[in-house]
Amino acid sequence: MLEKISSPEDLKALDPGKYQELAAEIRQFLLEKVSAHGGHLASNLGVVELTMALHLALDLPEDKIVWDVGHQAYTHKLLSGRREGFDSLREYGGLSGFPKRKESDYDCFDTGHSSTSISAGLGLVEARDRLGGAYTVVSVIGDGALSGGMAYEALNNASRLKSNFIIVLNDNNMSISESTGGFSRYLSGIRLGSGYNNLKRDVRRGLSKVPGVGESLVENISQAKMALKQMMMVPGMLFENLDITYVGPIDGYNVPQMVRIFEEAKKIDRPVLIHVKTKKGKGYEPAERYPARYHGVSPFDPETGKSLAGNVSPSYTEAFSRALCRLAEKDERVVAVTAAMPEGTGLKRFASLYPDRFYDVGIAEEHAVTFAAGMAAGGLKPVVAVYSTFLQRAYDQILHDVCLQQLPVVFALDRAGLVGSDGETHQGVFDLSYLGSIPGMTVFAPKNRYELRDGLKFGLACGVPFAIRYPRGAAWDGLKEYKEPVKMGKSEVIFRGKGIALLAVGSMVETALSVCEGLKQAGISATLVNVRFVKPMDTELFLELAEDHSLFAALEENVAAGGFGERLSGWFGEQEVKRRVIKAAVPDTFVEQGGTEVLKKKLGLSADAVLERILKVWKETARKENVRKESAGTKVSEKRVYEKGISEEEIYEERASGERRAGRKGRGIKPSGQKTDGA
Amino acid sequence: MLEKISSPEDLKALDPGKYQELAAEIRQFLLEKVSAHGGHLASNLGVVELTMALHLALDLPEDKIVWDVGHQAYTHKLLSGRREGFDSLREYGGLSGFPKRKESDYDCFDTGHSSTSISAGLGLVEARDRLGGAYTVVSVIGDGALSGGMAYEALNNASRLKSNFIIVLNDNNMSISESTGGFSRYLSGIRLGSGYNNLKRDVRRGLSKVPGVGESLVENISQAKMALKQMMMVPGMLFENLDITYVGPIDGYNVPQMVRIFEEAKKIDRPVLIHVKTKKGKGYEPAERYPARYHGVSPFDPETGKSLAGNVSPSYTEAFSRALCRLAEKDERVVAVTAAMPEGTGLKRFASLYPDRFYDVGIAEEHAVTFAAGMAAGGLKPVVAVYSTFLQRAYDQILHDVCLQQLPVVFALDRAGLVGSDGETHQGVFDLSYLGSIPGMTVFAPKNRYELRDGLKFGLACGVPFAIRYPRGAAWDGLKEYKEPVKMGKSEVIFRGKGIALLAVGSMVETALSVCEGLKQAGISATLVNVRFVKPMDTELFLELAEDHSLFAALEENVAAGGFGERLSGWFGEQEVKRRVIKAAVPDTFVEQGGTEVLKKKLGLSADAVLERILKVWKETARKENVRKESAGTKVSEKRVYEKGISEEEIYEERASGERRAGRKGRGIKPSGQKTDGA
Repeated sequence: MLEKISSPEDLKALDPGKYQELAAEIRQFLLEKVSAHGGHLASNLGVVELTMALHLALDLPEDKIVWDVGHQAYTHKLLSGRREGFDSLREYGGLSGFPKRKESDYDCFDTGHSSTSISAGLGLVEARDRLGGAYTVVSVIGDGALSGGMAYEALNNASRLKSNFIIVLNDNNMSISESTGGFSRYLSGIRLGSGYNNLKRDVRRGLSKVPGVGESLVENISQAKMALKQMMMVPGMLFENLDITYVGPIDGYNVPQMVRIFEEAKKIDRPVLIHVKTKKGKGYEPAERYPARYHGVSPFDPETGKSLAGNVSPSYTEAFSRALCRLAEKDERVVAVTAAMPEGTGLKRFASLYPDRFYDVGIAEEHAVTFAAGMAAGGLKPVVAVYSTFLQRAYDQILHDVCLQQLPVVFALDRAGLVGSDGETHQGVFDLSYLGSIPGMTVFAPKNRYELRDGLKFGLACGVPFAIRYPRGAAWDGLKEYKEPVKMGKSEVIFRGKGIALLAVGSMVETALSVCEGLKQAGISATLVNVRFVKPMDTELFLELAEDHSLFAALEENVAAGGFGERLSGWFGEQEVKRRVIKAAVPDTFVEQGGTEVLKKKLGLSADAVLERILKVWKETARKENVRKESAGTKVSEKRVYEKGISEEEIYEERASGERRAGRKGRGIKPSGQKTDGA
Repeated sequence: MLEKISSPEDLKALDPGKYQELAAEIRQFLLEKVSAHGGHLASNLGVVELTMALHLALDLPEDKIVWDVGHQAYTHKLLSGRREGFDSLREYGGLSGFPKRKESDYDCFDTGHSSTSISAGLGLVEARDRLGGAYTVVSVIGDGALSGGMAYEALNNASRLKSNFIIVLNDNNMSISESTGGFSRYLSGIRLGSGYNNLKRDVRRGLSKVPGVGESLVENISQAKMALKQMMMVPGMLFENLDITYVGPIDGYNVPQMVRIFEEAKKIDRPVLIHVKTKKGKGYEPAERYPARYHGVSPFDPETGKSLAGNVSPSYTEAFSRALCRLAEKDERVVAVTAAMPEGTGLKRFASLYPDRFYDVGIAEEHAVTFAAGMAAGGLKPVVAVYSTFLQRAYDQILHDVCLQQLPVVFALDRAGLVGSDGETHQGVFDLSYLGSIPGMTVFAPKNRYELRDGLKFGLACGVPFAIRYPRGAAWDGLKEYKEPVKMGKSEVIFRGKGIALLAVGSMVETALSVCEGLKQAGISATLVNVRFVKPMDTELFLELAEDHSLFAALEENVAAGGFGERLSGWFGEQEVKRRVIKAAVPDTFVEQGGTEVLKKKLGLSADAVLERILKVWKETARKENVRKESAGTKVSEKRVYEKGISEEEIYEERASGERRAGRKGRGIKPSGQKTDGA
């Protein structure tokens, strides 16, 4: 049946008696594709019927659906003619796992981060009303996303609207992990209660409990409220208090009922919130049971639910998780904060070991940071574990509440750098810039998992704001014998060569090691520095290196703008010694989805690309230097350029014979602070 | 009486019968000091009694008060031994207008931006409970600040607390200007209602209106809710729904009652929100009548309320205000958004001319930006007018919701650069960095008020994300004859000289003009470029300039980290031509309060400081170049260095005779692209 549906019209032509069958087919399709390609599963399985109902009740693409976060839009994509795309789901150049305006007219607003849909939807409504449009705007937001402050700001603003705007609260009783806080309990109350029908009874019961006066003022008022509370558990009264018309809760698996309600809701000249109850992972037993585990998945066997990835090496997340627990064992003041991602950030273990020192604040990065600042001001040692991309939301709080007061908050930034298949909205390639701009911030990037541990330990001890950033995926194990003790603002020299200095940040140390090897093949014994501290920068070392290095290359998984390379250039620009600085960084563009290896190649961040670039500049510089010196009357040796370098001939020979690449694999490079055998 | 009160103990020793008299004295004192020095008035006059009550009920400084925003803490400072400080209020090195931990033990957490106090307070509470403290934590937050999303995030998290935490809602029925939205109306309902006493009657009345069933589902539910709503207007039920115990509303001018309630509230092992009704400007008639006008004031005559500033030249804010209205007249798609600052941002005029195209979203910068993104996606041309420092809060929204989709939102950043007496929390010196890090963003800084108009016009027409940033205060009028049409990414050359190129951003063009003059006195005909576009950068021009300029100076009112100078250096670092780049920027530190002229001098951003630095480097470079060329066997003229430059002798002569400074004022400089008379 599914193959025949390529647009909402096809769906509308279907006999309603077939809805259930279609939903089952969609689930099967999603399971097949996601288990093969990886992607978001549980959230998509949960909203199959809800999406069908929206497509039936609306006139898409004229009408607009804004999907909050957006990872639950697979059925929407499937029903709007993108079935074929699922074979390239989340791959480079393939179908995005999130709504994308450039992908389809059916996607009206790009999402990825949480809690934006009501603001965006309200904007579309205002545009419609001002420009004489007649379309319907629906924002679909999860209960987790509704814990984000900007969703509340938007609700607060929606209330004055005098035209139609539909907000669908997709209530699956959890955000990515588990919602927390008063609002979550409030929704649970609605969920558990029997809803509208018991309204009268509840009101009567509540009334009878209003106490007499005479007790102490606070007690009195407080008791009166407590008694009234049950009565007030009228579904949605919180929204009604904000002047949002509330409808629900309704069953998220009854398509005809949902269609009826959506159609009626379209007629109301006010904002309407429709509370739909769904279940994450619906229809696939393992995902229903472990929705967090099946939130975002790698390829797995749909029969058993087991990952197909095989034995993967431990991730940085795991390294962080273990290191933090060990440090927390020794210091009771260490507490941990997550914004609704205990699994993703690796805090699950900490939470089970130290439940009373663990805080899941919901999808609320801003609160998370200032809350941590408050704890630090009170004498604790908070660690805020968060994805690099999500911490963007707390830029002001980091600056204004943490750094301005120099409060010792540790930020553990996971997924820093390229993240792969989640694409544009999730790349963690801005943190070195936004954190680097803030006075008093410390920014540390470990080269491997051992250094992550050392860095975290240092961060908890240093007494000032400290960010440690590490990438998604398997933790590198290399250069483990290099373990220079961590000192504030000091880089670690891995090899000491001459002529060319590679300064690599975090994950790029591994890449730089390959580049070094390539340079060695070309006869250049380069210096390799593990930058460690992007802020403060080890200017003392860099000045010293400038003495016998004419070319610097800064390697980082971050945009060039405001990144380490630019800072290094900026610093050199002020010095008397002028040194050319190649910036191997993410260019000034949003990075699309794709495997990180593919992306690195495309962005010029692969070892080969960096090597080629360095050699090209080195060669050019050498030629210019020769010309310059000759014209100045100084004869320069044709064989040796600069103090220690490579002649043009050597490069040409290498290139011609193609030995460089072939040779690299075979020969290997010995980590050493001494001169290489080529010297 | 006031002179005798230097600590809460002194206040506690006072006869309660004297409270009113003391409050009057405090108001007189505040009026005197603020009218003489400028500062925040209306908000401080409103909370005199509330602050007294808190000092009486708490044990300060053992107990902690977190003042949201913090500009209302004058009485708190006065009562905690800082009376003398008011003579240097908001001056360089003087008493801060905001709470500062380094200023006093009575200040437990620094504030400045809105809506942080509940998060910070909750953090202090957790620290207290974990570390065995016994102090009371009170967060004082205004109704305006409560429209900020992070306050909601914090309330949502406070609800699970099982120990005491007091939130004082200082409800003055407006934020800086006027609160908007559902929450504001909700509070008004409480305010206007007769509160607790009518509870029973309201419940009965509500009950009788519950309608029968049988109507359409949505209508039915909706009507039932509407009917119930009156009944639900039980004070604070919205907070109770979030599991926060609510008390109030209570009179903010009855000290003994407030003390009694605070003391009782301290005993409750839960978060308690105490709703206190106050009035901005209380006790000073002009401020009561025009609270927004008396929010933050320059020195004024307390008798008449009139400003003492005399005839001031029009500000950039006014220039923006006029330009926007003119552009809006011609294009109905132009709409404007403010986050609770229609006066400060100059949108008041727009609001009165085009009320239906004007949106005040409350203190909610995040929503403001994504809401604008939604409007842009729907075909409108939104202008978000906001202070540079407050836009920090929407970094993620600018990146994720505006730039990623390349939506044509215009950001009008007022107070960009040094802001003066508001100090650390308000300096607008990060926007070039945080905006510059974002792909697809355009960043424009006009040199004078005419260019602001041209830039805004360009921004509304360019069809991509566009930020225009301009400083606080009087709009510069200089160089008005330079009006090169605005072209994307193109700088404007003011003078074309040789040797030294000054590249100045926005407000620093004025400074650079003086520097140019100074250089001319020293015999150097420098090039002066009005950068205009910090992003994208005019690399073509800079490369061309590199041909006959060996020294560049980048001037900007922004931190160096991630700013224009660093970007320029980073770009030069990649080129074959290597040029020294002096960065005249805000150093990597938070900038304290003080007059902007004082601050500029201190930060090395005054014309004199920049000139001195440039000459020093120029001289050094010249000397080194001589040495180098000599050792290379090339004889360099002692009189002329580089193509066009200044000899060391000239500099020494100038310095010795002191003519440079004296001469500058007299002679002036003629704008000209030609060689100067010194050439």
